Amino acid sequence: MDDTLLMLPGPTSVAPRVLKAMSNNIVNHRSAIFGEIFTETTELMSEVFKTQNQSYLLTGSGTSAMEAAIANTIKPGEKILNVVGGKFGQRFMQIANSFGIDAQELAVEWGTAVTPEQVKIALENDEYIKAVTVVHNETSTGVAAPIEEIGKVMKNYDALYIVDTVSSLGGDRVDVDKYGIDICVTGSQKCLAAPPGLAAITLNDEAWKVIDNTDSNTYYLDMKKYKKSGAGTPPETPYTPSVSLIYALFEALKIIKEEGLENRVVRHETAAEASRNAVKALGLEIFPDEKVSSTTVTAVKMPENVTDAELRGTMRNKYKVELAGGQDHLKGNIFRIGHMGNISYKELAITFSALGMTLKGLGFDIDMGAGVAAVNKSYL
Amino acid sequence: MDDTLLMLPGPTSVAPRVLKAMSNNIVNHRSAIFGEIFTETTELMSEVFKTQNQSYLLTGSGTSAMEAAIANTIKPGEKILNVVGGKFGQRFMQIANSFGIDAQELAVEWGTAVTPEQVKIALENDEYIKAVTVVHNETSTGVAAPIEEIGKVMKNYDALYIVDTVSSLGGDRVDVDKYGIDICVTGSQKCLAAPPGLAAITLNDEAWKVIDNTDSNTYYLDMKKYKKSGAGTPPETPYTPSVSLIYALFEALKIIKEEGLENRVVRHETAAEASRNAVKALGLEIFPDEKVSSTTVTAVKMPENVTDAELRGTMRNKYKVELAGGQDHLKGNIFRIGHMGNISYKELAITFSALGMTLKGLGFDIDMGAGVAAVNKSYL
Repeated sequence: MDDTLLMLPGPTSVAPRVLKAMSNNIVNHRSAIFGEIFTETTELMSEVFKTQNQSYLLTGSGTSAMEAAIANTIKPGEKILNVVGGKFGQRFMQIANSFGIDAQELAVEWGTAVTPEQVKIALENDEYIKAVTVVHNETSTGVAAPIEEIGKVMKNYDALYIVDTVSSLGGDRVDVDKYGIDICVTGSQKCLAAPPGLAAITLNDEAWKVIDNTDSNTYYLDMKKYKKSGAGTPPETPYTPSVSLIYALFEALKIIKEEGLENRVVRHETAAEASRNAVKALGLEIFPDEKVSSTTVTAVKMPENVTDAELRGTMRNKYKVELAGGQDHLKGNIFRIGHMGNISYKELAITFSALGMTLKGLGFDIDMGAGVAAVNKSYL
Repeated sequence: MDDTLLMLPGPTSVAPRVLKAMSNNIVNHRSAIFGEIFTETTELMSEVFKTQNQSYLLTGSGTSAMEAAIANTIKPGEKILNVVGGKFGQRFMQIANSFGIDAQELAVEWGTAVTPEQVKIALENDEYIKAVTVVHNETSTGVAAPIEEIGKVMKNYDALYIVDTVSSLGGDRVDVDKYGIDICVTGSQKCLAAPPGLAAITLNDEAWKVIDNTDSNTYYLDMKKYKKSGAGTPPETPYTPSVSLIYALFEALKIIKEEGLENRVVRHETAAEASRNAVKALGLEIFPDEKVSSTTVTAVKMPENVTDAELRGTMRNKYKVELAGGQDHLKGNIFRIGHMGNISYKELAITFSALGMTLKGLGFDIDMGAGVAAVNKSYL
């Protein structure tokens, strides 16, 4: 298989022991032995979410969990406030619209973060808002939203607080109970460093109160069914789950526990700081407002007169390092360096070594070693 | 891990080379290299479906594909005819009901198969039926429906013909184009013998004509998005797919191609015949009408005065063979022997050896070797 280094905002590289766990024999998903693995995995998920709530695993991408968060709580015609400052904020709004929900956009310029004050004003102006969606880490722009501070605002309103931590959980600070998050969703293939294909969702009593009084807009993602099956003996999923991917996620979560969640976040913070400094040392500019730049992905302005194919194409084809491009109107205008999951100075040394050579090859008058030197400085 | 022999109607045992394929490095799901794997996998899926149509992979269980088939084609308030002769027939109807679709039940006694005549009468009596759902292999009762003959009836009506081949495709005869199936769905973990977590769906032009004029009732399973992404360069999925499970399905489909689909079906037919004969040789009774007994799972009446715990519990705990129980009102009244996927005389020899000992241990006056002898007779 391909040995390209993935420096993407997901999927991320998976540790050999996680890959190995996947190759275990398939067991019956309705057996006691699987029930144990399932229970331990969901308990570890709740530990990572920092919540006393039950967590649920969905066989699906992060988007399936985003849909579950909305489709089970808001009725067609009811109002939702979607904070939109990038592609994933838009996705929440598209999901709401697809169910005939009255989606109110709180538009935030791409590259900046929503402020708690903006959320407060929106809620003050409209008492009919049933829920607010916030994307913690907007991978499309490399921006982290202040979910703790928004949580403080949300506590004064009845609206449910729905947070997408797909590309932050396990890499940036998330504390579901402390922040007052009612529904939190994530994906397996980002900072958790498991293979793609699983999503997780955790819901508090406030959320369940709403869900128990709302007909789900979907069948496959009807959370009432997950709750009922999950409370059985042994605990189960309503439909056949990805047994092998749950083995993998279980192993990935054990690695997180071994490392310690706080250590892991600090490791991501170091990687983010090193990346920003290395980008600047090579003469490039960070795309978002640096004060709100993401802990798990760094978005960089494409240098003038350089195409995406020249920069990312050279990185991928010549130096075997895969970066992400810009999406939608940012296509060709930015590129993104994912530093999530199993990230250390090693991957950054390779990445900025390759970026230095790529820029030099494109005719830039730079010190090729400056990027890696900046990385080293952050790690020393 | 557990070495219990799984004789379930899914998940089935997975070949070591399929498990091994899963442990390959994760690649970017939006890369050319993954696009190739993805394309080849969906092409092999279409070969197994026996269709010229494009096939699509969903990150989800078989139920997600059942939902996709309905949620994209039938509007709330429109009529659908659901053939219901077991749990999965019911599921189609529950999905339809959950979207406010006017679901008409064609009720079939559990253990018998719907007839083409019944479908014809239902369609003659109601011109507003937009689609008919049929479960090919009703695993809950061990019955196979005559999907080819029903297809001949369907050709005279405009209603879409939606067939669930979750537990039959790759084990029983399915010929999507020849039978005139408009939408066909399946799951990875049954006769295809890949791990659970993926579903596949194929749709013909008639189906797309309807879908293109219907707002999807779901976001995650909106097939228009899959069509659009699948037609891209490289072909993609709208949301991050289960990369590792696609590696596994690709390998499992290569195995099917190597064996030959017709050989594989004949192998399943032999296993079914051997199982029925062995059941009877041990003095037990087949639950369904034998003429419509499934090719991939044999449902057996629980002997009088024997509990599910005594029979299946002993099989599992003492002899390490896992059978499936009855579901809903059949719980405790039947047990089910799955013989799908990588099934040969070996697994049946073990299973009926164990069943002979179990029955003897429960005090039955039987010839313990009669089951295995019957298996041998079918295979010799």
